[in-house]
Amino acid sequence: MDYDRIFSDAIKSVKNEGRYRVFTDIERQRGSFPNATWYTEDGVKDITVWCSNDYLGMGQHPKVISAMEDALRNTGAGAGGTRNISGNNHYHVLLEQELADLHGKEAGLLFTSGYISNEATISTMAKLMPGCVIFSDALNHASMIEGIRHSGCEKHIFRHNDVEHLESLLKACDPNVPKLIAFESVYSMDGDFAPIREFCDLADKYNALTYLDEVHAVGMYGLRGGGLADRENLMDRLTVIEGTLGKAFGLMGGYITSTADIVDAVRTFASGFIFTTSLSPVVTAGALASVRHLKESQIERQIHQERAAVLKEKMRAADLPVMPSVSHIVPVLVGDPVICKQASDILLDEFNIYVQPINFPTVPRGLERLRFTPSPLHTDEMVDHLITSLSAVWAQLDVKKFANAA
Amino acid sequence: MDYDRIFSDAIKSVKNEGRYRVFTDIERQRGSFPNATWYTEDGVKDITVWCSNDYLGMGQHPKVISAMEDALRNTGAGAGGTRNISGNNHYHVLLEQELADLHGKEAGLLFTSGYISNEATISTMAKLMPGCVIFSDALNHASMIEGIRHSGCEKHIFRHNDVEHLESLLKACDPNVPKLIAFESVYSMDGDFAPIREFCDLADKYNALTYLDEVHAVGMYGLRGGGLADRENLMDRLTVIEGTLGKAFGLMGGYITSTADIVDAVRTFASGFIFTTSLSPVVTAGALASVRHLKESQIERQIHQERAAVLKEKMRAADLPVMPSVSHIVPVLVGDPVICKQASDILLDEFNIYVQPINFPTVPRGLERLRFTPSPLHTDEMVDHLITSLSAVWAQLDVKKFANAA
Ligand SMILES: Cc1ncc(COP(=O)(O)O)c(C=O)c1O
Ligand SMILES: Cc1ncc(COP(=O)(O)O)c(C=O)c1O
Repeated sequence: MDYDRIFSDAIKSVKNEGRYRVFTDIERQRGSFPNATWYTEDGVKDITVWCSNDYLGMGQHPKVISAMEDALRNTGAGAGGTRNISGNNHYHVLLEQELADLHGKEAGLLFTSGYISNEATISTMAKLMPGCVIFSDALNHASMIEGIRHSGCEKHIFRHNDVEHLESLLKACDPNVPKLIAFESVYSMDGDFAPIREFCDLADKYNALTYLDEVHAVGMYGLRGGGLADRENLMDRLTVIEGTLGKAFGLMGGYITSTADIVDAVRTFASGFIFTTSLSPVVTAGALASVRHLKESQIERQIHQERAAVLKEKMRAADLPVMPSVSHIVPVLVGDPVICKQASDILLDEFNIYVQPINFPTVPRGLERLRFTPSPLHTDEMVDHLITSLSAVWAQLDVKKFANAA
Repeated sequence: MDYDRIFSDAIKSVKNEGRYRVFTDIERQRGSFPNATWYTEDGVKDITVWCSNDYLGMGQHPKVISAMEDALRNTGAGAGGTRNISGNNHYHVLLEQELADLHGKEAGLLFTSGYISNEATISTMAKLMPGCVIFSDALNHASMIEGIRHSGCEKHIFRHNDVEHLESLLKACDPNVPKLIAFESVYSMDGDFAPIREFCDLADKYNALTYLDEVHAVGMYGLRGGGLADRENLMDRLTVIEGTLGKAFGLMGGYITSTADIVDAVRTFASGFIFTTSLSPVVTAGALASVRHLKESQIERQIHQERAAVLKEKMRAADLPVMPSVSHIVPVLVGDPVICKQASDILLDEFNIYVQPINFPTVPRGLERLRFTPSPLHTDEMVDHLITSLSAVWAQLDVKKFANAA
């Protein structure tokens, strides 16, 4: 048994496909978001980050920083245990209440990440309902897919955002088994929105529960930042709303909100919730400040949407293949993993612009892209510099022929 | 389909068994570890924490706090993305190097928790080796069990720490299939040590890989805090050494260390690593300071062991049913979930001592216990107060009859 060979071969196959990932080593500079320092082999260099999921720059907001400083000073670094065994900090309790209120739900529950909140909640809920059948959007995030797999339940995958297809699958299913419909509000690689209302109507008609991942919408949509379901006034129609503290809220960690009983059941039975050290009180305090701020303040959301609209408009005007996104996410099609990486490398090396290539398995093969995330802090000059740089790279690499083929 | 009923019934059944968990709402007080503030319905109260897994009090160490303050000031709150997409912070790179060095391995990889590091690494490694058979200690942690389950591999469970049983299972297995032996060094609920050398000998004899969870040993054993395998000079004989930043290191997050190829393969294929926001740079900076400090300093480890020995000795002298632990963990048998919770409640309400009851599923039914974790900062007065308080509770509840039955 040549173990070494097994692992080196696995890596080689990814390299041969041109989708081996090299992490860009950066250090964000507080106070000058979206700028950062890039650590290269030849020393450091100043760059502008164009692919951060700290969508609103809240990770550097003075209120967030000062709340974290206070927590650090008052309670220290870590929680010191699992939630059950000495790791239930007062900040956890407050933040769970705040998040439940944000989504108009009875209760909230924190996890160490949005990933584990999806995996643990979906698998636990489904296991508690014998015979449960899960209906899952074809483009659902890996963490939801893992949760569905680990539940061991029968699953049906409906075409992305396709109401009719979902209905045909629900109709064909035994009316007497428990059902769960799992989907996202904003799909992060395309930037499109789910038909939340229509999915909820189907859930009512066929007596199914609904599970909505608002990871790419919380903080950014709705008058209090409750997400797309908040903006559409639909929060009360969803069984579970899941979110992250790691994107617009600027920290890390995940959560669910739902009825008191469902939250209590997940709290009681989910392995991924029970058997792990809880979030640092420093992180939790920062998240609390961030959620509270974005419940009140509209300015970040307004400028964010304006910036995204400007970027898309200017890209279209420059004849760049921006994909049809209705959200704050601005994907530009490349259609080949090697060219996609090359474009990213040139942008970084020659233009000080950092945008990561998005290749399989994050997106389907043939739909490789550069995915831009303008924030309220990306200035007009930064946008213009990006457009000229991208156009230069596009000309140099002849990207069009790949994008057209895709 | 009465969904509400399903979830409320599930909770009721746990309540009926007397093992419903009520989280104790506390706030640690920096600078006066192990003291904390307890938030009750009737206001706040000062307590001493006796069940923290911040084993050495590093979560409040000045070096850790100041490293976190610096990171907060320089880079801000969160990483802003997954490791691949703008969330690879310079602190991550440095910490992975530091951890690889700690365990004498070629490479290290960070995860958002020790839980997900176990789940993701075991399932990913096993899936990359077609036909892999996993040999798992009967008392392995939930996170390893989930990793094994999710790998979909054939598994054999050997009796806890039983070298002969493991050998008989290895012997019965096809010599030509890949094999992985998964176990822990310090078992956290009993405080016993694994026969690491003997397991490695078997791995050599039967050509198996080894996976060692050092979560309850890193920082605390070995001259540089590399864990039990460090103390025993066995680190180079293990394929993967896994650890947490959430216990002796005082923060949160998990990691693996191994050969460059294995780490690269997990980095490239593990869903739980790829698709999640990376650890906050503030957390990472604190962990870096903590790991570095414990590589040099012996004093925390020395006092820690001395405190644990004193506590066990005094418990034995007071005729309290302390279980036979060889480590820093001091479990006291109760043998009944309801009495265990009552004992914990009385200690907290009447004696200001916080120790969480440990019930099923964390330990087997009938082996319910109170689990004490003395730190270097638990004084003689605290120990004496604990012993008198415990003895009073033991007399009041007549715990002995349960402990004897168990
Ligand atoms: C749709 C979706 N859900 C969940 C997650 C996981 O959230 P977290 O980063 O908090 O683990 C992500 C991305 O990371 C995501 O894109
Ligand atoms: C043996 C063992 N492994 C792994 C973990 C998980 O580590 P973490 O708390 O960092 O998720 C724990 C406890 O939490 C544990 O006891």
